Amino acid sequence: MHSTMQDVPLTIGSLLLHGTTVHGDSEVVTATPDGLRSTSYAEVGREAARLASGLRSLGVTGDQRVATFQWNNTEHLVAYLAIPSMGAVLHTLNIRLFPEQLVYVANHAEDRVVIVDDSLVGLLAPHLPAMETVTHVLVAGPDAASADLDSLRASGKQVQLYADLLAAQPDEFDWPQVDERAAAAMCYTSGTTGNPKGVIYSHRSAWLHSQMICTGNVAGLDWHDRVLPIVPMFHANAWGLAYAALMSGASLCMPDRWLQAEPLVRFMRESRPTISGAVPTIWNDVLMYLDAHPDLSVDSIRRILCGGSAVPVSLQKALKERHGLEVRQAWGMTETSPVASAAGVPLGVSGEEEWRYRGGQGRLVCGVEARITADDGTVLPSDGEAVGELEVRGPWVTGAYYSSDDPEVTAKFHEGWLRTGDVGMVDPLGYITLTDRAKDVIKSGGEWISSVELENALMAHPDVVEAAVVGIPDEKWQERPLASVVLRPGSTVGAADLRDYLGAEFAKWQLPDAWCFIEQIPRTSVGKFDKKVLRREYADGRLEVTSPE
Amino acid sequence: MHSTMQDVPLTIGSLLLHGTTVHGDSEVVTATPDGLRSTSYAEVGREAARLASGLRSLGVTGDQRVATFQWNNTEHLVAYLAIPSMGAVLHTLNIRLFPEQLVYVANHAEDRVVIVDDSLVGLLAPHLPAMETVTHVLVAGPDAASADLDSLRASGKQVQLYADLLAAQPDEFDWPQVDERAAAAMCYTSGTTGNPKGVIYSHRSAWLHSQMICTGNVAGLDWHDRVLPIVPMFHANAWGLAYAALMSGASLCMPDRWLQAEPLVRFMRESRPTISGAVPTIWNDVLMYLDAHPDLSVDSIRRILCGGSAVPVSLQKALKERHGLEVRQAWGMTETSPVASAAGVPLGVSGEEEWRYRGGQGRLVCGVEARITADDGTVLPSDGEAVGELEVRGPWVTGAYYSSDDPEVTAKFHEGWLRTGDVGMVDPLGYITLTDRAKDVIKSGGEWISSVELENALMAHPDVVEAAVVGIPDEKWQERPLASVVLRPGSTVGAADLRDYLGAEFAKWQLPDAWCFIEQIPRTSVGKFDKKVLRREYADGRLEVTSPE
Repeated sequence: MHSTMQDVPLTIGSLLLHGTTVHGDSEVVTATPDGLRSTSYAEVGREAARLASGLRSLGVTGDQRVATFQWNNTEHLVAYLAIPSMGAVLHTLNIRLFPEQLVYVANHAEDRVVIVDDSLVGLLAPHLPAMETVTHVLVAGPDAASADLDSLRASGKQVQLYADLLAAQPDEFDWPQVDERAAAAMCYTSGTTGNPKGVIYSHRSAWLHSQMICTGNVAGLDWHDRVLPIVPMFHANAWGLAYAALMSGASLCMPDRWLQAEPLVRFMRESRPTISGAVPTIWNDVLMYLDAHPDLSVDSIRRILCGGSAVPVSLQKALKERHGLEVRQAWGMTETSPVASAAGVPLGVSGEEEWRYRGGQGRLVCGVEARITADDGTVLPSDGEAVGELEVRGPWVTGAYYSSDDPEVTAKFHEGWLRTGDVGMVDPLGYITLTDRAKDVIKSGGEWISSVELENALMAHPDVVEAAVVGIPDEKWQERPLASVVLRPGSTVGAADLRDYLGAEFAKWQLPDAWCFIEQIPRTSVGKFDKKVLRREYADGRLEVTSPE
Repeated sequence: MHSTMQDVPLTIGSLLLHGTTVHGDSEVVTATPDGLRSTSYAEVGREAARLASGLRSLGVTGDQRVATFQWNNTEHLVAYLAIPSMGAVLHTLNIRLFPEQLVYVANHAEDRVVIVDDSLVGLLAPHLPAMETVTHVLVAGPDAASADLDSLRASGKQVQLYADLLAAQPDEFDWPQVDERAAAAMCYTSGTTGNPKGVIYSHRSAWLHSQMICTGNVAGLDWHDRVLPIVPMFHANAWGLAYAALMSGASLCMPDRWLQAEPLVRFMRESRPTISGAVPTIWNDVLMYLDAHPDLSVDSIRRILCGGSAVPVSLQKALKERHGLEVRQAWGMTETSPVASAAGVPLGVSGEEEWRYRGGQGRLVCGVEARITADDGTVLPSDGEAVGELEVRGPWVTGAYYSSDDPEVTAKFHEGWLRTGDVGMVDPLGYITLTDRAKDVIKSGGEWISSVELENALMAHPDVVEAAVVGIPDEKWQERPLASVVLRPGSTVGAADLRDYLGAEFAKWQLPDAWCFIEQIPRTSVGKFDKKVLRREYADGRLEVTSPE
């Protein structure tokens, strides 16, 4: 017996069509030096058609890769839609990658064209000559005409203005039929060891993930919403928020390059988003700015999505209690499109128990399955007690990395499941609690110490701005925790105070023996604490370490 | 370039696994003569495993059909989940079908097993002997043991209690891997002419449709919601609400056979749903009951989904203004799984303009495309003015009927689109306004008169309970409108009054010339106005027709 349902594929093209016709009256608003710039989704649809025609005229065919080197703005949104819909593959280059990694991923993906923001020309130009497969560069943005195009032309590539190319193109494009399992977009993860690894999203995975973002358990988007993705569009698909906005008809508020607290808060007050997504460090900056400016509020926001690294409860509490901002922690990674779980609190739960729920990584969304495994690959019970590596499975979870047969890379998959590299527990009701990255767990005398739990506890101290804990070699215990702390200016708190503070929550053997007070925690190219830098600085004797005793 | 995404199918089985584990603490509550009966989703999962084992023990294999003849209750939910997940096909029999149609569909689908509610044994028994392929009957429900099993056994079929069969089975089942395009469930439409036509949903279509129901533009379900599907589970998949509940973790409130206003309102007050779906006639009954009982409120409900036939604005206004109940009209049909569009109001719109938006069929949901065509199949512009037959396309829209090559049936499809049989307009922003069923449009002197618009206007009159308008033959004009009206008890309003009332809104040539006042409007087996009965009664001279002059 066959189903009688139509065989209509799930494609970015269908999402483009829907968003730019049915929701043609929604808008994308982008921050510029001269204020807000608004573009209707109907116009976004016409611009996508012009971009697709323009790229064809440059010779882009089949599933060739077109790269973007852009902030979150209108032109990046147009590229998100046009490139996959024409059958090509969108490669979002992370502008914060280290130069050798940036060149590596552009060559590995064989990018043909790069679309670069006017404000990023200076960052791209030096590396362009090494991008061997790139033939054309398009410079986008309101100030493209005054950008230093010669610096790009020095690479020998064909360089032209995005606006000039598009001006000559028609407002309609004969979008091809695309198989839903075809490649739509790719994103490299910046691994802490080895080369970045490529994840290739399909049209299907992007469509399903976007629809999931629109469901009530995650963002619950409808066409009255306004979505502010602060998470960059070159990070894991901007958490799916751009596509989800087109799907639901929610408008988009794009902050472009102004990601510091002051311009961000101003942009929030002007563009009035109802929902926004960013990593904890951004919200920490916003919190401090709002604390310092009690006359400013961002009351249009009904929900904050936060993830990328563990979201400290202290941060969530402060945002809620002092500024009425509700944080929903979500968990995922580039490899999971990225959203795999979202926090929530059972009805009737309040007080400290509520914060315990909000501090976890939440419940699995429908479509993603999870399990935990021991070091030897044995599947452990999802009983909320057994601790192991989290493995996930689902239609928007990667099952491989692009064109890599490095054994270290293939070892990331286990019986068809993705090994996430995160360590934690899953309880019988699908609540995930992650305690650490597998590589950051501190192994002390046969026991595991969670660096993340210590960090969260430290960051709950009123005088601590940020804290990172890493394992340092120890002859007797194998590893012991080292806490690196950024204090509020003027604080006189010392290591012994903080150690005593942690003593209320942790066993004595879990407390850090070594402490250092620094100006800022080093960060990776995606803004996470860069613990390998801390370990290296410690090994090189470049950290000033004290002990509480 | 291949996507690296995992190839995980979209199946009812994955939805079953998610809902009964991650949301094992949500519940389905069913009305019984002794009050509410609550079952956790975790227990639903175990019961589904037992049912699958039990059906296997009866010899159900492959994609054989298992029919249900049940109200909305826990056992029907278990059947919804277990039957497709074991690879079999769920056939929901409409208990209100006329006997010959009921027997026809059971034989056409080749049903092997029928699960029947204890309260419906008497309705099924007379027709069971004619259901040729049925070998087993399972009697479910709290009072199954005292049902008249002998009346069923008289058919020669094997008859046993659902509870007895399940008691012997294990709590776990080795659910098979199922292709997402495989048949999952089937539903027959009760055509007004000819035999009912079968639509076969796939696992994929059910999954995608359920996720769409959970998005903010439709029901926005999250796991704090409680869903009351009053729309029967034997109608178009209960509008997807049952599967969407499992997907989101929302609890379910099942009214079983108590669909009259008084027990329904009591059930709402006891089970406290946050969202509920039913056809307009049910809400009309609820409205009248609430009006008569000002001390009763159903304030747990945050949104009502309403569809199945046009939802009069007067009804929506009354529910909102007198009882704080917000109605969201949705449009669809068995052939579209069913939800294809949902109403909503642009921000800033209020007053009569708001009601105009709420009175339409709403905006297309992402995934469904629509267009309108002229009688000759020409595609007309979606400009909000051109009127034609609505055609739709999408991954949860049927592209055929089961096993039928009747030319009249294949004519329902046009270049891969479903011809809906609905007449109306689509505007450039995807708002659909349906003015009539194609077969109910009144063709008068070369112009079209919408029967639905006349009905809605009449039902806005305070003395009119219900009204149906049909075309009757006319020598001069080809057809002219006949209005059949049900007045409030005691009303003294006459045809001339109503004609004058309509005159404020309609051109003179559109006003009905013929009127009849009746006790109730005849209904089809799915509760819609049965206009063919009215036309037949008129032709047979059985209606007492008056003219306003």
